[in-house]
Amino acid sequence: MHAAGDVRIEEVPDPAIVEPTDAVLRVTRGCICGSDLWPYASMEPSESGQSMGHEAVGVVEEIGPEVRAVKPGDVVVMPFAISDGTCEFCQEGLTTACVHVGFFGNNGMNGAQAEALRIPSADGTLYPLPVAEDDALMPSLLTLSDVMGTGHHAAVAAKVEPGKRAAVVGDGAVGLCGVIAAKRLGAEQIILLGRHPDRIALAREFGATDVVSERGAEAVERVKELSGGHGVHSVLECVGLDQSVETAIEIARPGGAVGRVGVPQHEAIPAEASFFGNVTIGGGPAPVRAYVEELLPDVLEGRIEPGRVFDRTVGLDGVPDGYRAMAERESIKVMVKP
Amino acid sequence: MHAAGDVRIEEVPDPAIVEPTDAVLRVTRGCICGSDLWPYASMEPSESGQSMGHEAVGVVEEIGPEVRAVKPGDVVVMPFAISDGTCEFCQEGLTTACVHVGFFGNNGMNGAQAEALRIPSADGTLYPLPVAEDDALMPSLLTLSDVMGTGHHAAVAAKVEPGKRAAVVGDGAVGLCGVIAAKRLGAEQIILLGRHPDRIALAREFGATDVVSERGAEAVERVKELSGGHGVHSVLECVGLDQSVETAIEIARPGGAVGRVGVPQHEAIPAEASFFGNVTIGGGPAPVRAYVEELLPDVLEGRIEPGRVFDRTVGLDGVPDGYRAMAERESIKVMVKP
Repeated sequence: MHAAGDVRIEEVPDPAIVEPTDAVLRVTRGCICGSDLWPYASMEPSESGQSMGHEAVGVVEEIGPEVRAVKPGDVVVMPFAISDGTCEFCQEGLTTACVHVGFFGNNGMNGAQAEALRIPSADGTLYPLPVAEDDALMPSLLTLSDVMGTGHHAAVAAKVEPGKRAAVVGDGAVGLCGVIAAKRLGAEQIILLGRHPDRIALAREFGATDVVSERGAEAVERVKELSGGHGVHSVLECVGLDQSVETAIEIARPGGAVGRVGVPQHEAIPAEASFFGNVTIGGGPAPVRAYVEELLPDVLEGRIEPGRVFDRTVGLDGVPDGYRAMAERESIKVMVKP
Repeated sequence: MHAAGDVRIEEVPDPAIVEPTDAVLRVTRGCICGSDLWPYASMEPSESGQSMGHEAVGVVEEIGPEVRAVKPGDVVVMPFAISDGTCEFCQEGLTTACVHVGFFGNNGMNGAQAEALRIPSADGTLYPLPVAEDDALMPSLLTLSDVMGTGHHAAVAAKVEPGKRAAVVGDGAVGLCGVIAAKRLGAEQIILLGRHPDRIALAREFGATDVVSERGAEAVERVKELSGGHGVHSVLECVGLDQSVETAIEIARPGGAVGRVGVPQHEAIPAEASFFGNVTIGGGPAPVRAYVEELLPDVLEGRIEPGRVFDRTVGLDGVPDGYRAMAERESIKVMVKP
């Protein structure tokens, strides 16, 4: 990406092992993320450009001499963040706070909308999958690199519990995975705040019980009506704008929780509404690497199908048009098959 | 209080039973709260004035025909908020979200810096104490009406756990009770952010292990140095200003939690620092009524002595000077003995 709206396919040198803990990953499936649409909308022109993409499954091609947990030929999922797997934060399961953290396709790091890329801290970052590279479950396995783990993080941070009421703000791929996660954790009511018919239809199949397409004060009123008058116990904030965060806080029941996973495109959270309602605000970059273990069995056994968020597949040449299609809400999420 | 800085002692009609669920409380001890200092600093002039005070212990003088849980002669603690004890929020322990909530000494409600006052929803609001009205533990029992319960709420919202690191932002009575609460819940390290020698000395006696008197970026750096480089697991925010909240977020370890109990005198919480650190922000008006049961045995058996925050006792005539003394930080907290 060279500027807002300017995505190009470029030949770059093949990745190679630099550090002894590196691996080289051949990407078998990548994708375009809702968060990639923020720079697509606003990136300042850049001579060197930014290699994009932070979600992938692939095959390990080569490893450095200190890599132990993966080997050439392994099919793996590549979470969006690098984690060393050994620091105190990794040990606690907050891999996105790893002392060696880095984010693929961001801030000069190599991206996964590519044929291959270098993976630092390969042992801690990559997660081997017990499937072949052309397995039919690949789309769902690919979501473990970000959107499914991120939706799960929103649900965890929003303290979704069996029998409780939840709302999901945002009908993008993360919001849809948030619906899956809320249902998986036992929410009895799941209200989706969204307005795109295709996404709403999928959300209902994933377990959304109600849909609110209003915004602002009207949305708040509607959610309260639907949830017994006081709002919901858990709100999954999957957008990251001023209005969505404000709405998320206002639809939370007193004593409820908001789980934020939409990368903030805004500066501030209202201080008073959350305080007087004793509403807890949690979340952040999801430690998806730590969640693979919990989510993988449900994917492998078909209990959840987050791969259904992909409604278009392109080759590398189709990536620029994939950005356009997602930005124009023509597509929910685009898979890239290099 | 008639305006900022203008506190007067006035004769008002005796309180009387209005609703069948009311009681009349004779105040044996009241006090001045740090939160009373906000209107003392900024209240617009008001003809009718606002009856002040929301913390008391006292003796039930009279009850309405539907009151069952307290009777005339009972010594009780009066939490700062009215709660009916029966609604869904009261049942869940979030008494400050009661559907019949009201706050004493606020917004036209009668206050407890007085000889007596009317207590709505007496059954749900008052908590009978197993002591005589002149018990030596009265100062500590009085703190159960607000500051000790509020400090405890900060510690609960900040998820203080045995063996973990905590910090307390603010050295007022609530902050000092926050130190007691953090120690009571097992924090191994308790860093007080404060700068008044008398308060710091008391905080150390309550269990603070370290003191940071810097502010802003220097305070953040100092706390990180003291806490192994990454900040503390739990931050008790006991002030409620922009800078204190910002500092609270920045000294939290990634994955940590901030418990806010300082009534917000600011509009916004920074969105990014809390997000990228996966820092949870919780808290709000403390359900002190629900906490009495847990804290009372520790007070009665002398394991905690929150009453030590009182360093001055005045009669009703001394209340105006009590406000002045607290505002000028000459006194930590003033007890009122009508």
